[in-house]
This record gives sequence, C-alpha cells and structure tokens, in this order.
Amino acid sequence: MEGFELNILGCGSALPTTRHQATSQVINLRNKSYMVDCGENTQTQMRRMRINFNRLNHIFISHLHGDHCFGLPGLLSTLGMLGRTGELIIHGPKELKDFLNPVLAVFGKGLPYPVRIEEIDTTTSELIWEDAGLKVYTIPLMHRLPTTGFLFEEKQKEPHIIREMTDFYRIPLRELPRIKRGEDFVTPEGEVIPHTRLTRPAEPAKHYAYCSDTAFYEKVIPIIEGVDLLYHEATFGETDAARARETFHSTARQAAEIARRANVKKLLIGHYSARYEDVRFLQEEADAVFPGTLLANEGMKLTV
Amino acid sequence: MEGFELNILGCGSALPTTRHQATSQVINLRNKSYMVDCGENTQTQMRRMRINFNRLNHIFISHLHGDHCFGLPGLLSTLGMLGRTGELIIHGPKELKDFLNPVLAVFGKGLPYPVRIEEIDTTTSELIWEDAGLKVYTIPLMHRLPTTGFLFEEKQKEPHIIREMTDFYRIPLRELPRIKRGEDFVTPEGEVIPHTRLTRPAEPAKHYAYCSDTAFYEKVIPIIEGVDLLYHEATFGETDAARARETFHSTARQAAEIARRANVKKLLIGHYSARYEDVRFLQEEADAVFPGTLLANEGMKLTV
Repeated sequence: MEGFELNILGCGSALPTTRHQATSQVINLRNKSYMVDCGENTQTQMRRMRINFNRLNHIFISHLHGDHCFGLPGLLSTLGMLGRTGELIIHGPKELKDFLNPVLAVFGKGLPYPVRIEEIDTTTSELIWEDAGLKVYTIPLMHRLPTTGFLFEEKQKEPHIIREMTDFYRIPLRELPRIKRGEDFVTPEGEVIPHTRLTRPAEPAKHYAYCSDTAFYEKVIPIIEGVDLLYHEATFGETDAARARETFHSTARQAAEIARRANVKKLLIGHYSARYEDVRFLQEEADAVFPGTLLANEGMKLTV
Repeated sequence: MEGFELNILGCGSALPTTRHQATSQVINLRNKSYMVDCGENTQTQMRRMRINFNRLNHIFISHLHGDHCFGLPGLLSTLGMLGRTGELIIHGPKELKDFLNPVLAVFGKGLPYPVRIEEIDTTTSELIWEDAGLKVYTIPLMHRLPTTGFLFEEKQKEPHIIREMTDFYRIPLRELPRIKRGEDFVTPEGEVIPHTRLTRPAEPAKHYAYCSDTAFYEKVIPIIEGVDLLYHEATFGETDAARARETFHSTARQAAEIARRANVKKLLIGHYSARYEDVRFLQEEADAVFPGTLLANEGMKLTV
C-alpha cells in the first residue's frame, strides 16, 4: 500500500470487555508498519485484521499501564516463533525497561532477533524517530504517570513526472530525478522548461496525532495544530466528568474541544470506559463541539 | 453450582490464532473456582464465558511458556480494579517468580489484595493444595522445561439423609451430622438402626487430570489411573510425529494411548498446533485408540 493507513486493534480502556479490546493501533505507511501501544491480545487482533507481522519494526508505548503494554510479551514471543531476525525497536517511558527486561530474561533466551528499548523523555515534545517515510515526535500528555502521545508526520513525496510532457521535450530518463527534486530542464537549444510544467505535485503529506491517555490538556494544541487526523481518548461522558478529572482522563466533549481549538481535520475518539454498554452518546457529545467526530472500533481501517 | 464443572477458556498452542486462544481452564466446584494456566486473553475469555472473578482464589501454572502464563499480568490487574481484597494464590514452577515479581513491582503498587506465589517441585507427584472440596496433586510431565500437570480430586461428599426414615424413627436433628459421618442410630428403646438405612450415598467424588504440555510419558499413567476425565495435550497428528518428538509434545494417538492404558473414563484433547485449520482429524486419530475422545474448544463447559 502507498497511503497512510490507520488500523484500530483495540480501543477499550483499563478493563477489557467482550465489546472492546485493550489499546493498540497499527499505522501502515509505504510498506512499513508502526505500532502504537500494545494491550493484551494485540497479536490476535493483528491476525484478525491481517496485519503483516514482518513489516513491523517499531512499537511506541505511551505509558506503563497494563492496558497499553501487556500484549508485548506475547507479541515478542510470537515474532520469534515466526522466525524474525531483524531488530525490533520499542520506544517508551523509562519504566518500560523495568517491565520488559525481566520478561526478556525469562522468555527471551531463544529469541532469534534483537530487541532494542529506546527511552522516551515524556516531559518534552521531540523527534524520536525518522526514516525515509516519516518522522515521529512525542506529545507530552497529562496522566497519572509519565505519558506521551505521538505525532506521525509523513514526509512529503516527490512530485509525479508527467510522461507526455517529458516525452514531448525528449527529456532523457537520467534527468528525471533532478526534475522531481525541483530543477528546471534546459533543452539542447537552450530553452528552459520549468519543472512545474513537467510534474504534478504528489499528494500532500499526512499528519496523524495520537493522544491517549490524558486529562484535558491545552498544551498539546500547538503540537497537533492542523493534523489530518487526531485520535484523542474520550474515556467518559459529561455525566462522569468528575470521574474523568479524578483519573486524569478526558470526556468526549473535552476531546472535541482540543480537536476544535487545534483545527484538526478529523477527530477519532476511543478508550471507552467499560461502564458504557453503548458509546454512541460519546460521539453525540463530541459532535456538538466538533462535527463529524468518528467513533473508533476494533477492526476499523482509516485512510488518514 | 454443586457439580464438578470444567470450562475451556483456551486450547490452542504457542501461536495463538483466530481459531484458538492460548491455554486456560477453570474448574468450578462447590462455589469455588480454580484456574489452570493463564494464557494471554484469559480474562476476556472469562467474561465471555461468564465465569465469576470473585470465586477464583487459586491459579495453577503448569510451566513457564508464554502461552500458559502471559494472561497473568492482565488478570491480576483486573482483579485489583474489580476491588478484590482476598489473597490470590498462584502455584507454579520456581521460574514463575522471576516473571511475576518484576511485573508486580511495576504494576502491583496499588493492588488491593495480596498475591502469594507457591513454588511447585516439578520432579515429583505431591499434594500441593487441599481445602474442604478437593485435593490437588502435581503430575510431573516431560517437556522442554520444568513442567507439571495437575490432578484434581474432589473429596467424597457426605451421604444424603433419607428424610422419611429419620422422621419415621423420630431421630432428633442434632443426631444427623453423626449419622452422615457413618454412625448408626440407637433408639431410646435400644434398637440399632444402621446408618445405611437412614442415608443414601452421595454422588461419587470426581477426579480430573490435566496433562499439558508433555511428550508421550508413561510415568503419568499410575498417577492418573481411572480418573473420570483426562485432558491431555495433542498438539500434533501422526504425520507430524517427528515434530512432536523434537518439541516434547504428544500426538493425538499418543494422548489416547495414555488414556487407554490409564483406564480413564473420558479423554479430552487440546493444545492444537496452529498449523491445522481443522482439528477433527486429531479426534479421529485418538478415537482409533480411545473411542469417544472429545475435542476441546473455546467456550466448552463439561461436567466431569
């Protein structure tokens, strides 16, 4: 696939139910996969959604609550049994090592691939990963323990060559990379053909922000300004706003407020409290502030 | 419930699939629950099967492979969130502490109940638990690392009083406990009424044996002799017998061979390799040696 695709593997909260799994998402971008959080049963959800295990090289853990990381031991074991050899990089707050290192000591002896744990500073927004396709920045959040969201910025792709035009001007193939990078073409007769006549722009690069778990926290607004898609936790409805405050979670309305003030293009809410049998009212509450709010659900695939 | 009920929460093997969950079972007996193994996603399977979280006081772990214990962190957290206060006892080989203690150090700070880890000697068959309803013995197995099965022996219930007879002889209520325990009744006139005339025997006590994971291992036979139900792993079919040998697992035929030679009343097989889309052929292979073999499946409830 070429686009920027988001897969929702789980969007429940601390208590898993038969309706919602613990949190996990997978971003597919230019044939690579990036996982965000890894609650219990994530590996089975990957199979259910037919997500390729081999393309996954990075896992980003927002914080060390079990519903965001208890799927790691099983997933790491399974990757080993599937014969993985390439390094797996797991990014997370410093407590991640206290959890994973003992697990690897007991269960990781025969693991045929290396696991690298990269420690995240949860107090500041900074670039933590960059490759050919994207940059990943942290988003400090406000929760009961050190927590960070993640901003995934796709890199701008090069423009597409307009074949009819390059044929017309008889431009040699070897010139095309330069033209793509923005250089004009000069014919043997000295005529300058502007690169803009020879190319059409690629799709604009997409930006996705993940904010979970967090209380209502205005400091994220400038960091996520204008993203194409924001996933924001909406654990509670307005009637449970006091409970949201106590537990450092957000209401659906607060999620929408953040989305509106950050001028994001789309809002997706999730991390629903187990107390709600039906979460459509959360969508309604968010919708009143940010029209068109989407409700996350297990198995959902979205093009950012 | 009064009977001896076995619930199959998961009967897959190391690689979970969309067809089978990692291993876990729950025995319900006289309003108490006992869990055997706790693979990833066990807590959700408990919800799906409507198994009461409050009645669970013991978890027995056969060995430290992830598909038998990676559900513990999530289950332990959830029991805490549900407000548990009573002690939870987890029985397992000594490696269990190396896994669980660090998990409890990171995630167990606010846990409102104590967790006690009881170390099992996997080299000998011995009594490891006894309460009013049952005795639990270990069954040394032959696997790639220290592994034990478990024999659950229900205690014989007292006989039922035949009300018409005790009324007829005008036996005072205070005498009934003694009669239940096997004493005869002597009337004021000196007539001896044998207790067998005043009572009818209770249902015979049931015995259940759990043998997973293990290679074909004859030494279990005398320990499980005559049990009402044997769960024996049957990871592979006969065509993969070499693979079974290499990995210290059993074929369905070998499971049936153990069942036949131990004169068990019923055989239930499970722990199916992920390579088989359809496991009915395992039943056929076992059936040829032990007719009436049952195939375990997620959601299955059996009366032992």
